[in-house]
Amino acid sequence: MNLTSQKERALMPNLKVSLTARGNRAIQAIPPSLIRTVDNRISQIPDIIKLTLGEPDFEVPQHIKNAAKLAIDQNFSHYAPSAGFLELRQEISNYLLKATNTYYQPEGEITVTVGATEGIYTAVQGIFNPGDTIIIPTPSFPLYHAVAELMGLNIVTVNTAPEYLLTANKLAELLIKYPQAKGIILNYPNNPTGATYSPEQARAVADILRQTDLVVLSDEIYAELTYEQHHLSMATLLPEQTILISGCSKSHAMTGYRIGYLAGPAELMTSIDKIHQFVVTTAASPMMKAAEESLRHGQNDIIQMRTIYQQRRDLLLNALNLAGFTTTTPAGAFYIFARIPTNMIQDDVKFVYDLAEKAQVGVIPGSIFGPGGEHHIRLSYAASTESLIEAGRRIQNYARQYQHSAVI
Amino acid sequence: MNLTSQKERALMPNLKVSLTARGNRAIQAIPPSLIRTVDNRISQIPDIIKLTLGEPDFEVPQHIKNAAKLAIDQNFSHYAPSAGFLELRQEISNYLLKATNTYYQPEGEITVTVGATEGIYTAVQGIFNPGDTIIIPTPSFPLYHAVAELMGLNIVTVNTAPEYLLTANKLAELLIKYPQAKGIILNYPNNPTGATYSPEQARAVADILRQTDLVVLSDEIYAELTYEQHHLSMATLLPEQTILISGCSKSHAMTGYRIGYLAGPAELMTSIDKIHQFVVTTAASPMMKAAEESLRHGQNDIIQMRTIYQQRRDLLLNALNLAGFTTTTPAGAFYIFARIPTNMIQDDVKFVYDLAEKAQVGVIPGSIFGPGGEHHIRLSYAASTESLIEAGRRIQNYARQYQHSAVI
Repeated sequence: MNLTSQKERALMPNLKVSLTARGNRAIQAIPPSLIRTVDNRISQIPDIIKLTLGEPDFEVPQHIKNAAKLAIDQNFSHYAPSAGFLELRQEISNYLLKATNTYYQPEGEITVTVGATEGIYTAVQGIFNPGDTIIIPTPSFPLYHAVAELMGLNIVTVNTAPEYLLTANKLAELLIKYPQAKGIILNYPNNPTGATYSPEQARAVADILRQTDLVVLSDEIYAELTYEQHHLSMATLLPEQTILISGCSKSHAMTGYRIGYLAGPAELMTSIDKIHQFVVTTAASPMMKAAEESLRHGQNDIIQMRTIYQQRRDLLLNALNLAGFTTTTPAGAFYIFARIPTNMIQDDVKFVYDLAEKAQVGVIPGSIFGPGGEHHIRLSYAASTESLIEAGRRIQNYARQYQHSAVI
Repeated sequence: MNLTSQKERALMPNLKVSLTARGNRAIQAIPPSLIRTVDNRISQIPDIIKLTLGEPDFEVPQHIKNAAKLAIDQNFSHYAPSAGFLELRQEISNYLLKATNTYYQPEGEITVTVGATEGIYTAVQGIFNPGDTIIIPTPSFPLYHAVAELMGLNIVTVNTAPEYLLTANKLAELLIKYPQAKGIILNYPNNPTGATYSPEQARAVADILRQTDLVVLSDEIYAELTYEQHHLSMATLLPEQTILISGCSKSHAMTGYRIGYLAGPAELMTSIDKIHQFVVTTAASPMMKAAEESLRHGQNDIIQMRTIYQQRRDLLLNALNLAGFTTTTPAGAFYIFARIPTNMIQDDVKFVYDLAEKAQVGVIPGSIFGPGGEHHIRLSYAASTESLIEAGRRIQNYARQYQHSAVI
């Protein structure tokens, strides 16, 4: 019997009617990812150039691919220790020592995760109890909010516009208002804005946090993509109360390999590592060997990619400015967060669909990232230089229609 | 500056004293995995043969390795859809159609997970609310209990000894006592006992469950390792209220590739897929391409491995019986659950350490798997034939000391 005829006669997993709407309420309350909704809708437009996803267009460097393939040949197909292969944790430790001047012990202070996503999830699960208060500066990566909500946390969002950084002053004010806060999520360089702390700003923020008992979840996955300035990590400034979230996905174009890591004080990491075991057991073995290689011999890859990203950023910034968008030069990550010109559609979701339909350029509405994001769009410049040139041209053409028409 | 001297001068992530013992209470309440504790301790004994872990000693079949390496070469290094590559979900759908006669739609009814572990975790998180009652037959894989406890579920365990199967009669009694139960975890072939439902037994259990609104989480990861009888899936018997948990880890010796999957009615899968996104985003792309190949062209691998497992099972059973252990022939998985002879140490944890020290054979104490496991040991025969022969010889030698000594 062939598959088609077998399908026709097969049973169907239609949910028993009495089981309708009985699943987890916290999950049902969280709306589906709007980034995906927008991305799916505009993906159907022919010839669209998508600057939507935070994903490098680069290929994984050849020496890292080779390491992954060698690991497959060498039968790294068995369970790794739950915290990840010790050799990888040693490389992470060495890397962090050089990058942050803090020495995290491979045994007990570092856990390898399934991308930074699992890092964020397990860190929040490991540190907080339902009802705890967490501070999330916005605009921010929507995952933070979803994970905190899933856990039943009390979420305090703080709008960081127009700097797009939670400055020391704003933080101080906030802590007077929410003295019960147990933790805070920092993300710099920031997704979606590309803003990042200068060393002075980072120090000022750390000085305030040091006077508190807040646990700092510092998502620094874009640390290696910092332009024209030095990235000063919370791991350097506040190692005694920080869980550092990072990984190789963005620095080495390895998003699909799903390797991230967490580093922090042993007691916090013990809880986190325990839940990590229950959630995934461990990351994929050959992918960990690839990550090991990226940390051991991948410093040049980063430098090369960073140079190209910076060129792409400037190219896209220039096109946006010519089209009338207000931007600040993002100092990190690979996003531009641009203010929609006041003579164009001001509802950012409607604007995005209009731009996609009329100009065949796909971007993400800023309001998806929370308070401070309205009237903005996020453009990822982790796309090829050719696509960015063409997208810039299309956006400028799109802007021309407004030179002869009234404000909508 | 070299790493050693840099280490000496580096900062240390010593937890701020005021942050001590402030982490997640539910996680802290769960004891660390006793399997790992036992395994770590006995791993330090020189020349030990470990029959402790549920991990095939086989290598990944060459055609599957090739598929993984090709995927790396072909730049499958970008994010896959959160539910997994569509091609993989199509292969899973085809496989399940043939194996269970139920047609799960690749879009909406199947989610690829980071091993069956993440499948179990996200299924429990997606289906239950804190305070819900879940039935877990024991002895069982300790992860079920931990995941349910983490979520604050009300756990009803039911001792399945001596059959090591939750029979229809026992289930019926249980449901009278716990009419509020919202779900049940089934696992057959079973870890740790190797017991599995005959088709008649599975039908009888399904007939009772069909009269209830219980959601059935059916962990059938060992389905392909069923000996001398047919595996009848809950996906066939109860598709309208079952979430099927499975994967390629055990059938194709791919534990370290971390690919599992869930299949079930669309409404339940929607919640589960949403939390899956928040937990891991998606599984590793090259590993998914390997899993696709294992489902498409890997049927012969299974048959070959199964034949060898069965020989190993019989070999180890024979040695255990000669040494005085009471066993039933396990019909599935790759575990033997053996009753410690009454003239030996009856505390199974103490017995395991004694066996490890005196006979250099590592096994897992049965009580770790919950009520019904006491006085038993679990031996994994997913080890090489040579190790199993030698382990059998050592166990028989160990038993000889008791022929001339009193009961301890």
